[in-house]
Amino acid sequence: MTDDNIIYVGNKPVMNYVLAVVTQFNNGADEVLIKARGRAISRAVDVEQIAINRFLSDVTTKKIETSTESLSTETGNTNVSAIEIIVGK
Amino acid sequence: MTDDNIIYVGNKPVMNYVLAVVTQFNNGADEVLIKARGRAISRAVDVEQIAINRFLSDVTTKKIETSTESLSTETGNTNVSAIEIIVGK
Repeated sequence: MTDDNIIYVGNKPVMNYVLAVVTQFNNGADEVLIKARGRAISRAVDVEQIAINRFLSDVTTKKIETSTESLSTETGNTNVSAIEIIVGK
Repeated sequence: MTDDNIIYVGNKPVMNYVLAVVTQFNNGADEVLIKARGRAISRAVDVEQIAINRFLSDVTTKKIETSTESLSTETGNTNVSAIEIIVGK
């Protein structure tokens, strides 16, 4: 999997990321990794569900992993949850 | 798994749900299912991560599944993403 096959989900509208996932598969990717942290985790699941249910009938969810990342902020270190969703053919 | 072993994550503070998960294991449960829909999905991942990393050293994440549920609202049907996280010993 190249860096191109990783979609980082943030605060943009869901369909922006869905389009990015669909585009990766249309360009020949076999797998796409959808990543998100914190509140964007819900949106990452939306992206995965919309992409595979509405646009990519031959793609399924291969693996979902969660983790905790430590971020340094102005007020010290803070922990944030993260998710990685692999979708593929 | 009985119904008691299912924790539905909603809009309450994260630690309420963490405490519920920890209590289930302390009462002898081998597995707990953490469920959430929509924006609460991010919180469900927080609950899972905090419970296993900070409180339950012998518990790991067994399985994570996502799905889409159809809800009927005043303005018609709407789809919402859902997550199920199984944590166990």
